[in-house]
This record gives sequence, structure tokens and C-alpha cells, in this order.
Amino acid sequence: MKLYDTQRSGNAWKVRLFASLRGIPLERATLSIDRGDLRTAEFRALAPMRHVPILETDDGRHVSESMAILYLLAQGSDWWPAELHEQVRTLTWLSFEQDRHMKPLAKLRLHRGLRSHPTPADDEVQRWTREATEALDCMESQLAASPAPRPWIAQTAHPTIADIALYPYTRMAPMGGIDLEGYPAIGDWLVRIEALPGYQWLFPATPNSNYFSNEIVQDTP
Amino acid sequence: MKLYDTQRSGNAWKVRLFASLRGIPLERATLSIDRGDLRTAEFRALAPMRHVPILETDDGRHVSESMAILYLLAQGSDWWPAELHEQVRTLTWLSFEQDRHMKPLAKLRLHRGLRSHPTPADDEVQRWTREATEALDCMESQLAASPAPRPWIAQTAHPTIADIALYPYTRMAPMGGIDLEGYPAIGDWLVRIEALPGYQWLFPATPNSNYFSNEIVQDTP
Repeated sequence: MKLYDTQRSGNAWKVRLFASLRGIPLERATLSIDRGDLRTAEFRALAPMRHVPILETDDGRHVSESMAILYLLAQGSDWWPAELHEQVRTLTWLSFEQDRHMKPLAKLRLHRGLRSHPTPADDEVQRWTREATEALDCMESQLAASPAPRPWIAQTAHPTIADIALYPYTRMAPMGGIDLEGYPAIGDWLVRIEALPGYQWLFPATPNSNYFSNEIVQDTP
Repeated sequence: MKLYDTQRSGNAWKVRLFASLRGIPLERATLSIDRGDLRTAEFRALAPMRHVPILETDDGRHVSESMAILYLLAQGSDWWPAELHEQVRTLTWLSFEQDRHMKPLAKLRLHRGLRSHPTPADDEVQRWTREATEALDCMESQLAASPAPRPWIAQTAHPTIADIALYPYTRMAPMGGIDLEGYPAIGDWLVRIEALPGYQWLFPATPNSNYFSNEIVQDTP
């Protein structure tokens, strides 16, 4: 299978992380937004929604949206639970991540961590900060109410694809100026995820601590 | 089962519409944002994410997020397809709706249709309009590429919960100043949905054509 991604995409990180945890080999085609790779006719032909990640399956299908890719890769495992109400809770948190969690955290990271242009208005940054904080408060409450032996976000005994979906933008929250010190249950959950066999950092190399010090990372393959 | 909703919520309309199409009776508890019903301790206790819709099941569970509620209500029917790649495409479009479709359309509707305060900046309205148009362009392309006998958004023979999720905010796009005249495939799809047995308008009564003329609707039960 082949993954079309960009180097910095948190949504693509979800997929690479999950494939690594599942032991599924992925060929990687890393595109560059700066170079205009996402605006070419070739990319549009395989990605009508014009976003990465795109998973190309061995039988030539192209799957858009990280949620759908995670679901496909979870088949035959406990990462998509067998019990109906565990499935429903997994979908609740997958939806929450797309609707209320990812966007403010990604925007703060682009602005403060990656210094994207143009500079947003102060009240936009304040709004993103408020929305990001509300999303993290909500996760913190859920995780604090999910003790072992069901310590994962959907209150399951085995982690689900909702944990994977929530991980990257939570982990990168400090890049956007959101301090995770006040979220002890989230902190414990991050440690549990990073201890899973096969855990993989955003970049294939060793975690680069400078990444969180707002260093600009080249957006090239 | 009992649905906590508000009168104007498009996300809650998805659930009422789907329950009606499936012939599932729903008791309705309609809350008022203006009256502060969503900020009470009682509501927070059953809705940690503090949003409607919330489905209360007969065994006392509370399900948050319309996507998860639709999935639960679809069990045992073709609305959640049996074939894996049809499931994956359904999730792709459910995710698209939460991530890129609902929000700009809902914001334009609140601003232009329901005249919410404060008045947003012009460049915000322009951004929502651009994002809403991109989302509708993407739907139009998919539906135009989905001829009968598989004319639904996930290219299935039977409609899926992704069609239901995409319906309300698409249908209400004109309230936000988005003209659907230029989207013939979307127009045909709206007609097909509205012809389904059990189809239900936003309000239980007869469709009120004034609703689309930007009339303010009282947000009370």
C-alpha cells in the first residue's frame, strides 16, 4: 500500500503511526504544498477532496480522509472494537476530533509553530485558543473518567482508532502555544500511546526535540 | 428512545430525519440555547461535549455526535452498508461533512439566515463562502460521477448515513446566501432524498417556505 502525505500533516501522521503499530508496510509518497504538488491534475485525479492523506490500496483504490483510512487499516483487529456501543463511542470521538479538536489545534500550530502567513487577527488566535482549550478540557474529563482496565478515550480495554486520531494534534498542541501541563490525564494517555510497540514519531528519524521549539521544518520530501 | 435537540440544529435534523425514514419512534426534548438550557448542570451531566443532538437509548446510554447516533440507528439496515469498501466510502463522506462541509454552511446560515450577533467581519464571510462553495463543488463532482444504479454520495445502490449527514446543511445552504442553481447533481440528489418514504422536514409541521426567506425562527420548544 502507498500513502500520499506531506511531511508536516498531522492527519497523515495518524495513518503512518497506525500502520506502524499494526505492522503494515506503507510505501510513502511525500508531497510538498510549497511546491504545489496538491494542485496538480495528477493529484486531483486520485484525490477529489484535494487533501492528504490518501491511501492507495494494492488493488488500486484511493481512500480519502484519515478516519476512513484508519477504519480500513483496523479491520480484523481490536482497534475497531467488536462491541456495538464501543464502536459508537469510537465514532463519537472520531467525529469530535474532526469537528472540534483538530482544527483549532492545527491552526494554532500553523500560526505559532510553523509561522504561516498571513498573520491571523488577534481575535482569531484568541478564538482558536479558546476552542482548543475546550476540546482538551473535554478529552481530559473523559480520560480522567476512564480508569484502567478501560483507560482509552472510548473507554475500551484496547486502544481504538479514536485514540490514534486524537494523538497527533494533541501531541503537537505545545507548538501552538497550548501548555499540556494542566492536563494530567492527557499526559498519562500520551505516555501510554508512546509506549505501544511500533510507536512512530512524526518523522521517521529519532524524535527531534527542536521540533517543539518552533523551528521551521522544510516542507519537502 | 429520546432525542435532546434544539429547534434549529441541522445536526439534530439529521437524526430526526433518519429516525423517521427508519420508522424509529423518538421522544423529543427540545432545548433552547437562548434560555441557556445547554449550559445547565443537568445537560452537562448527560452531554459532556455540551452539544446537541444527544440520543438517550432505552437502556439509559447517552450518545453524542450525530455521526455516532446515525451509525447506531442504522444497525441492521443497508444505511450502513455491509461491504467493506462501501463502509469506507461512507466514512469518507461522513468525515468530509464534519470537517469541511457543515461548518462554513452553518456559519453562513447563522449569519445571513438567522442574523446571529455579533456580525462577522467581511473577510470571514468571504472565507466561509469560499469554503462552502468548495465543499459543494466537491459533492457535485462526486454525485455527477455517481449515476444510477449507484446514485448516492458513497456510490452505493441504497442511500447511506453519509447522505443523511450531508442533507440538512446542503438543503439549508440558500439560507446562507449560497445559490444551489449551479449544482444540478446536488439538486437531483435533494429531490431523491425528499422522495424517500418517511422523509421529514426540519420542523414536524408542513415545510414552511418562509423559513428560507430568512425569517427569524423562535428558538423555543
